[in-house]
Amino acid sequence: MEFTVTQIANMLGGQVSGDGNQPIVMLAKIQDAKKGQIAFLSNPKYEQFIYTTQASAVIVKKDFDPKKEVSCALILVEDPYSSFTILLEHYHKLLSFQKTGVEQPSFIGANTTIGKDHYRGAFSYIGKDVSIGDNVKIYPHVYIGDQVVIGDNTILHANVKLYDNTRVGNDCVIHAGAIIGSDGFGFAPQADGTYKTIPQLGNVIIEDNVSIGANTVIDCATLFGDSTIIRQGVKLDNLIQIAHNVEIGKNTVIASQAGISGSTKIGENNMIAGQVGIAGHLVIANNTSIGAQAGISKSIKEDGQKVLGYPAFEIKEYFRSYAVFKRLPELNERLRELEKKVNTKDSMSVGETSNGKNED
Amino acid sequence: MEFTVTQIANMLGGQVSGDGNQPIVMLAKIQDAKKGQIAFLSNPKYEQFIYTTQASAVIVKKDFDPKKEVSCALILVEDPYSSFTILLEHYHKLLSFQKTGVEQPSFIGANTTIGKDHYRGAFSYIGKDVSIGDNVKIYPHVYIGDQVVIGDNTILHANVKLYDNTRVGNDCVIHAGAIIGSDGFGFAPQADGTYKTIPQLGNVIIEDNVSIGANTVIDCATLFGDSTIIRQGVKLDNLIQIAHNVEIGKNTVIASQAGISGSTKIGENNMIAGQVGIAGHLVIANNTSIGAQAGISKSIKEDGQKVLGYPAFEIKEYFRSYAVFKRLPELNERLRELEKKVNTKDSMSVGETSNGKNED
Amino acid sequence: MEFTVTQIANMLGGQVSGDGNQPIVMLAKIQDAKKGQIAFLSNPKYEQFIYTTQASAVIVKKDFDPKKEVSCALILVEDPYSSFTILLEHYHKLLSFQKTGVEQPSFIGANTTIGKDHYRGAFSYIGKDVSIGDNVKIYPHVYIGDQVVIGDNTILHANVKLYDNTRVGNDCVIHAGAIIGSDGFGFAPQADGTYKTIPQLGNVIIEDNVSIGANTVIDCATLFGDSTIIRQGVKLDNLIQIAHNVEIGKNTVIASQAGISGSTKIGENNMIAGQVGIAGHLVIANNTSIGAQAGISKSIKEDGQKVLGYPAFEIKEYFRSYAVFKRLPELNERLRELEKKVNTKDSMSVGETSNGKNED
Repeated sequence: MEFTVTQIANMLGGQVSGDGNQPIVMLAKIQDAKKGQIAFLSNPKYEQFIYTTQASAVIVKKDFDPKKEVSCALILVEDPYSSFTILLEHYHKLLSFQKTGVEQPSFIGANTTIGKDHYRGAFSYIGKDVSIGDNVKIYPHVYIGDQVVIGDNTILHANVKLYDNTRVGNDCVIHAGAIIGSDGFGFAPQADGTYKTIPQLGNVIIEDNVSIGANTVIDCATLFGDSTIIRQGVKLDNLIQIAHNVEIGKNTVIASQAGISGSTKIGENNMIAGQVGIAGHLVIANNTSIGAQAGISKSIKEDGQKVLGYPAFEIKEYFRSYAVFKRLPELNERLRELEKKVNTKDSMSVGETSNGKNED
Repeated sequence: MEFTVTQIANMLGGQVSGDGNQPIVMLAKIQDAKKGQIAFLSNPKYEQFIYTTQASAVIVKKDFDPKKEVSCALILVEDPYSSFTILLEHYHKLLSFQKTGVEQPSFIGANTTIGKDHYRGAFSYIGKDVSIGDNVKIYPHVYIGDQVVIGDNTILHANVKLYDNTRVGNDCVIHAGAIIGSDGFGFAPQADGTYKTIPQLGNVIIEDNVSIGANTVIDCATLFGDSTIIRQGVKLDNLIQIAHNVEIGKNTVIASQAGISGSTKIGENNMIAGQVGIAGHLVIANNTSIGAQAGISKSIKEDGQKVLGYPAFEIKEYFRSYAVFKRLPELNERLRELEKKVNTKDSMSVGETSNGKNED
Repeated sequence: MEFTVTQIANMLGGQVSGDGNQPIVMLAKIQDAKKGQIAFLSNPKYEQFIYTTQASAVIVKKDFDPKKEVSCALILVEDPYSSFTILLEHYHKLLSFQKTGVEQPSFIGANTTIGKDHYRGAFSYIGKDVSIGDNVKIYPHVYIGDQVVIGDNTILHANVKLYDNTRVGNDCVIHAGAIIGSDGFGFAPQADGTYKTIPQLGNVIIEDNVSIGANTVIDCATLFGDSTIIRQGVKLDNLIQIAHNVEIGKNTVIASQAGISGSTKIGENNMIAGQVGIAGHLVIANNTSIGAQAGISKSIKEDGQKVLGYPAFEIKEYFRSYAVFKRLPELNERLRELEKKVNTKDSMSVGETSNGKNED
């Protein structure tokens, strides 16, 4: 990006003090900033840096009153931190979508259409009968199989692989190495102990505003015409496994290394922590929160539950049980003591046995 | 594919009713099918669709008696569902092996031979001294190192990576992003706290009819002449870790995200569920079933065991223990109550203490 | 490699007996070795093979006294096994760094510099403003984003992906499919249940002598100028997740499929076993040992601890608790028996209730 200080101030609804014509090409922390960069000052304990910074401009609170001479331009705003955040987002978006054009060699199949402002990196591969929207960024080593459909403003990072017939919506980001549409794990046991492969003929549908992490895998549905579905707004972290015929509800967030088994339907607005495992053919209600490493072996039917454990149950109850688990040797000892006492008194009063061991 | 209705009927040993000359190019569900497609009717509750479907043909039971006029051709068979399944498999196989020829650019090293009917996608890389059988399909971005040997009818999906000296048998399917033959994790601790890399010089052998999931990793063996071995008929899901010198026995099935540590030997016909972890240098007997997320820290010597837990033990016992675990706070409370009662009576009868606490 | 027997003997400080001029091109086991190969004999139970081996040379103990005629050359050393290990390491290093030159097509951006003796495989992609040291090996399908910096003697195996601004030190090995610098998993919940992406603007720094396993993922730091840091000598296995802003201390070893959540700082010389999960924003002391599949939910402040469990605590205590866990049904039964006994006696002596159930 390259903007003047004044252009940035206008973007933020702020006032310029100093030279508004300086070009800004990057953002930086106030203590590290160099010429051509813009920083912000929010926390008073960083104020010292504004008097020595080499930044071309600093965003400050509108009532900022310098104690010494300031050599950079100032942009005066209500809330410097949130202004800087807006700038960061803007910058990140510019950065994300700045690449355009086609690097060579790249491969594109017959009957494939691709919208305007796209980027296709070198060694990217697009099959035949593919339809791709506007402003899509396809990084090097991406593979897009036949009959794939992709919406607008979607970014496929280096080495993303989309098998045939995958559909991806608008405004998605898929990170490096993610695999979408691989064969579901379907094998029918035979009498001789071998397994016969069940053909996997469905596809994967990814709706709008979905983010998919690096090296995550999403398998296609088994049957012709069926789909594994990732609903809009879903955020998947890295190294996640989503099996065949799974459906992930709107705005659900899943952390790294979790795995969802075949045909399970996850509700909306769930929070699924890292390394969670969910068995197949379950239904998980909305607003469920599943703690890290939990194992889910039954459907969760009521909304808003929080669970933990293996198999998982209500999280506070899990912690109460676990607190006792940590003291189990002591519990066991107390039980033994009590048995000894009761049985001793027993034998003393009843006189049946002499070794303190007693079978009722 | 393109077959006539009659050709398909012959393939299935069925009778045609209606126009047998119509071309069929795809399979579909009866409720979705269009012209040129074939569907099946098995469950009577879908019968309504046969009167409105646009399918060119529908496979029905041979005693099917339409209640209204049917406009599509019918193929009359014993069991429509299993006939459709045969068709699906046939179709899937055709689809899997339909690609032939070489897309450019692709790279092939010196002294490499490759059989007939192969496909090599654009940006695929094959090293030197490689030997590849007939009807092998090598998708874009596949990497095959030097001295690799591959049998017949094997499919390497986009981006599979085979390190030098890997051997892959016949009729294998390796899914996108799988890595075969990476260095085992071998480091010798040094006196100064650093680690020295132990050279990894063995390879990986994958026998016939093996399926390997997306982004799964199989490390090579450590020593020269040794191999990590995946026996025939093994099915590995996605994102699995197989460490150096592991051997997986015939027809064993391993679900997603499981990890097998170095030098462990897994028996035949095992079922290993998702996210299972198995420690190194163990031996697991045949027909073992390991439940999801279990941790195996000791060898399993007897065939046919089912285990769960961390560390794992017999699955029914695990569930019995876990049932009590969930009630541990209650158990603890009952024990406390009992202690109070016993000690109170104790102090009442013996009169030793006044606070109800009593040390025998 | 090709050396004469005498050259190898000199390298090992050993004496040659027999023809020292024979060329050696490979290492092998004594029972498998062929002409042109060198083997070793250490364990007396393999002695039989030295009389029949086709090896050109065998490394033996210096006092080795053959019982029959030996046709190969001998290299006499103090410790044949460790001599062979030295040779293996030497050979492995030669092998690792033997590739040089540039295969085509490969892509290199503007203002990128790359040192001497490098290898760039076909379909490798290097962005602009990249700086790469000497003797760096870049395998096929590697992707190196813009502004990346790489030191000397580093190997990037097939398909490694480095996002923009990543820094990699000297003498590192990064295995196939590893992703370095992908976006951290940062999403801010909005009032309407959707999530806004928090721009991820930091990078990843990998210091010297680091090894990173296949398909492992390391996310970049969130803020501009911040870094996810992997300190020197760290060894990461396959399929590991390292989240944004994590720091892994010097010489720490992490086994396969472990996951470290955002902003956690791991100390030096830790041993973290497979499938471990560590929550975010924690600090883990030096010399910590974390057992397989453990879940770490709190900081570990004291050096040298060993932990296990979910959540983890001291490993011996975990095993003591777990030993009781396995007998929980029995414990429960004993408690029930005791309750019955106490309450019966109670009712007998006090006569309050007749059903043996008693509330104090």
